Amino acid sequence: MSRYLSGKLSALEPYVPGEQPKNQKYIKLNTNESPFPPSEKAVSYAARAAENLNLYSDPDNTELIEKVAGYYGLKPEQVIVTNGSDEVLNLAFIAFCDKERPAVFPDITYGFYPVFANVNCVPYEEIPLNSDFTLNVENYMGLNKVIFLANPNAPTTLKISLDDIRRIAESNPQGIVVIDEAYVDFGNESAVSLVNDYSNLLVTQTFSKSRSLAGARLGMGFAGREIIEDLNTVKFSTNPYNVNRMTAAAGIGAIEDDAYMKANCKTIIENRAYTQRELRKLGFELPDSNTNFVFARHPAYTGEYIYTRLREKGILVRHFTKPAICDWNRITIGTAYEMEKLIQALKEITEE
Amino acid sequence: MSRYLSGKLSALEPYVPGEQPKNQKYIKLNTNESPFPPSEKAVSYAARAAENLNLYSDPDNTELIEKVAGYYGLKPEQVIVTNGSDEVLNLAFIAFCDKERPAVFPDITYGFYPVFANVNCVPYEEIPLNSDFTLNVENYMGLNKVIFLANPNAPTTLKISLDDIRRIAESNPQGIVVIDEAYVDFGNESAVSLVNDYSNLLVTQTFSKSRSLAGARLGMGFAGREIIEDLNTVKFSTNPYNVNRMTAAAGIGAIEDDAYMKANCKTIIENRAYTQRELRKLGFELPDSNTNFVFARHPAYTGEYIYTRLREKGILVRHFTKPAICDWNRITIGTAYEMEKLIQALKEITEE
Repeated sequence: MSRYLSGKLSALEPYVPGEQPKNQKYIKLNTNESPFPPSEKAVSYAARAAENLNLYSDPDNTELIEKVAGYYGLKPEQVIVTNGSDEVLNLAFIAFCDKERPAVFPDITYGFYPVFANVNCVPYEEIPLNSDFTLNVENYMGLNKVIFLANPNAPTTLKISLDDIRRIAESNPQGIVVIDEAYVDFGNESAVSLVNDYSNLLVTQTFSKSRSLAGARLGMGFAGREIIEDLNTVKFSTNPYNVNRMTAAAGIGAIEDDAYMKANCKTIIENRAYTQRELRKLGFELPDSNTNFVFARHPAYTGEYIYTRLREKGILVRHFTKPAICDWNRITIGTAYEMEKLIQALKEITEE
Repeated sequence: MSRYLSGKLSALEPYVPGEQPKNQKYIKLNTNESPFPPSEKAVSYAARAAENLNLYSDPDNTELIEKVAGYYGLKPEQVIVTNGSDEVLNLAFIAFCDKERPAVFPDITYGFYPVFANVNCVPYEEIPLNSDFTLNVENYMGLNKVIFLANPNAPTTLKISLDDIRRIAESNPQGIVVIDEAYVDFGNESAVSLVNDYSNLLVTQTFSKSRSLAGARLGMGFAGREIIEDLNTVKFSTNPYNVNRMTAAAGIGAIEDDAYMKANCKTIIENRAYTQRELRKLGFELPDSNTNFVFARHPAYTGEYIYTRLREKGILVRHFTKPAICDWNRITIGTAYEMEKLIQALKEITEE
């Protein structure tokens, strides 16, 4: 820290992304990436776009937004695209949260929410999940604060219903409700269409997971026209050309190649079923996952032990140090081969 | 504006990027893009990187930063790379400015500085340039605020010397001095090496102009280790994967293909000399430019008139409505052909 850092940020603890090892080959099940390459259409569109990089990207992202809006049955003015869905979440913290309107989210959820709150000097409240990681919807009634809910939730893999989201949106007319659907394509119902009914609802999604574009950085926000306008006000005040030409082109290719995305999701869901079954055979406890990862603990071993032993065997999973979840590991669902390797390694670890 | 927008942003006026016309073909001299395509190496590296987009980019940008640091003779810990140089500027506003340490910049400079200040709720002071657009260095002595200076300045095209930058850095030990070198490669001396001498100096550059990568979004910041650490604290609290895989790869290609960049800059400087000479023959007034654009006015016509008539003739230039510069237009230096077309059109307009 330099002596120039603003005092308001002196205690800021940044988000810690999952390890991205550079020099060793691991089976990488730690950052919820897709094990499948991007759509060939996405790759070829991006490569073609690279030839015109001397020109700025379209700050309005017109073509990509029209494509996305068409896909989700919305109007273009109900959509914003961003440099990863982290950016649309941060735009929402900047635009809608302040000392009078704090942020609210579960105590166990995407670890970036408190960081966004802190970097923007916004107060926040963490509402405890139930001990089985389920969310008590009653806790979110009538708060009229800015509510952030990952659905399905990470790292717990659990979801809430669209009916519950409707109830939360209705009971908080003075506050925005942000539904972060990063993992929605792995078997959950999306709240996107609800933005036609609730002017205080913002739904976010990403191309990183189901569409195999984590390395391209492309996120989406869906809401009523006015919310999108506000997000654009902040976007044009921080980073007008937030989505580069290649990423916009890749996004268009990925949307067009919907069958590929759906087929990959189907495979992940199959591999997830296998993984859950085998983990339980080995004595692991885990909620039924709605995401491209599972969240598991073993009654006989600490989460750190499992993480460390897997790492020694060349398999990376995500371990969190937060006390409430330090017995658990988040394990990304990869290919069938990778999942067999995982199960084999865990068999060795638990049978030693 | 929705009723949910935070009160602190209710008067926020976003930055207005130059027009990016979608449906008509213009000679585009309005956003200071390079008229030359990106380096073939940048294009091929980016295309290859597109094949691995299912994996996140390296949040530490290790390979790109090593390449950039090597090129500029710095250590990797003295470099940050960002999603365009707008991002590193915004990170600096977030990290170093606050109510106690306001921002300071000239009244005529990059129009984004006051927007960054406003979106971050930071007070700022604008110091008037002299009437010939030169900067009086004495005005920046002993301020101990966070000073932002574009060098060369936009849209005025004028520069200050490294000696002046040294003096400013020395006389403001309690405040950061940010030197925004977006246009430095078109004939100016860079202050990058000074970051070894001044722990309060931050120099920013971009791949958008001289390296023909505006559409890729890649910026750089150079400073002492502690300043870079602070910028990274904010980066990892807002957008850890800020530079996507393709852009990082394109940046590496562009740095490796230095001869191409230098040759393009040489051509731009030649075309600039032609343009300046011909504009003066037509009665335009303009300072000697140190950038890839000129800033010109004609005593007989308003800036808006010139802008509008050029537009009708299929040539886009940048016109500003700010009173102090509304008689002027900023005209990007393009190819020799484009500059001949510009001069021909202006001849017609001024001889009518």
